[in-house]
Amino acid sequence: MIVVKVGGSEGIDYEALCDDAAAIIRAGEQLVIVHGGSHQTNVLSEQLGHPARFITSPSGHTSRRTDRRTLEIFQMACRGVLNQRIVEGLVRRGIGAVGLSGLDGRLWEGTRKSAIRAVEDGRIMVIRDDYTGTVDHVNVRLIRLLLDGGFIPVISPPAVSAEGEAINVDADRAAARTAAALRADTLLLLTNVPGLMREFPDESTLVPTIRTAEIGEFERFAEGRMKKKILGAREELESGVRRVVIAGARKAGAISGALAGAGTVIS
Amino acid sequence: MIVVKVGGSEGIDYEALCDDAAAIIRAGEQLVIVHGGSHQTNVLSEQLGHPARFITSPSGHTSRRTDRRTLEIFQMACRGVLNQRIVEGLVRRGIGAVGLSGLDGRLWEGTRKSAIRAVEDGRIMVIRDDYTGTVDHVNVRLIRLLLDGGFIPVISPPAVSAEGEAINVDADRAAARTAAALRADTLLLLTNVPGLMREFPDESTLVPTIRTAEIGEFERFAEGRMKKKILGAREELESGVRRVVIAGARKAGAISGALAGAGTVIS
Repeated sequence: MIVVKVGGSEGIDYEALCDDAAAIIRAGEQLVIVHGGSHQTNVLSEQLGHPARFITSPSGHTSRRTDRRTLEIFQMACRGVLNQRIVEGLVRRGIGAVGLSGLDGRLWEGTRKSAIRAVEDGRIMVIRDDYTGTVDHVNVRLIRLLLDGGFIPVISPPAVSAEGEAINVDADRAAARTAAALRADTLLLLTNVPGLMREFPDESTLVPTIRTAEIGEFERFAEGRMKKKILGAREELESGVRRVVIAGARKAGAISGALAGAGTVIS
Repeated sequence: MIVVKVGGSEGIDYEALCDDAAAIIRAGEQLVIVHGGSHQTNVLSEQLGHPARFITSPSGHTSRRTDRRTLEIFQMACRGVLNQRIVEGLVRRGIGAVGLSGLDGRLWEGTRKSAIRAVEDGRIMVIRDDYTGTVDHVNVRLIRLLLDGGFIPVISPPAVSAEGEAINVDADRAAARTAAALRADTLLLLTNVPGLMREFPDESTLVPTIRTAEIGEFERFAEGRMKKKILGAREELESGVRRVVIAGARKAGAISGALAGAGTVIS
């Protein structure tokens, strides 16, 4: 089984991705697709007069400020548009794709952060009306039910808190937790760069392979969101995923290419 | 099994509906929920500067003009917001609700109208870039898979054409086709009026029961969308649904009330 995380950033060719995914599914592979929707959310937030805002934690991590209205806009963009675009693309290719969010059937259960510390103008503020959190538990029963029935799950945030509220979660981390819970062979993180580079953005410095035990040595090359991917990879490899591949999503054949060894393979 | 169609019009209390639905599901009933999203779509269309337009057919039927952008806005409102609001409401009450559109797993297969005739300023025009159609076939396998697994399907338009395009369909008719395909005991159409009235809007003239054979006599009392509900009821009763109930959705306990006989019962 392969869990593929597709980025929600600009410039991804979803038609090419659907071509590739459909071919792999037809060849008999069990595929679970996870996606985010950050770019779409930014665009829609702007159109609706509620522009995206980002907050920085005291430790320097950046995340989306998610009030209830932002969560609603996120669901419109992610669940309403992007998820159904991928499902439509696969269905048109004869694949019985089924779109899900982490809310559906309590697929991704998590914890809402009751108070978030953010740095603004050098001062630390506490935000209490934010709807973000982390996925603690993946209800694999629904995923397996669909896969065993011949359907392909296409999953996006939000997740659901213990209290039953929708919460925004990091899609990379959620995909990683899903892969671990399913004991997937491969977690494939498709992104807008071709993999981890020693000297970003020089693609000739791409790191082709990393052994799990050596991950620590490579963390220092990772910047921004790549840092989360690398950090997450270690956890999931320890949880039973055989290999994690970080690869580019901008070319046709991205999934099959990555499965054949393109990008950065961590195992 | 009961198929409940919840309107997408203004003023419906979805929290009260979730309370009621959750109690019925807990009592052991198999429930399938279908909903539209016309009011939400109108509001969002306005906010996004692409206001809703309606076209009138030469025979006098009114329908939403659905270009590709409108379809996208419809999916945001219906799939992104309303569907996930109902799912979140049920999940919060401990019900494993799973949101679906007719695209997911080709749940609602239909035919796209390749050319629509519309009357504008007294002239008949032909529109070719509209994404509307009708549901011809319901893939009950996905619905049964979920129900048998203990999950409650919450389904909204769009449907999918034979070519794999998303198409806007009438949610009342889609719910009726779903009830017939599942051979449901009851199709419950919740709307913003308490049932069929002999003299609309005088609620004291509510028609409490109609026998299937007598439907023809009552069609003349139906106005606007009620006409579609009454016309649809006959078809579905002939297809194996035991009874169709048309009832109001604005009071708490709407579903259980209707199952107990409130509204107009056709059987």
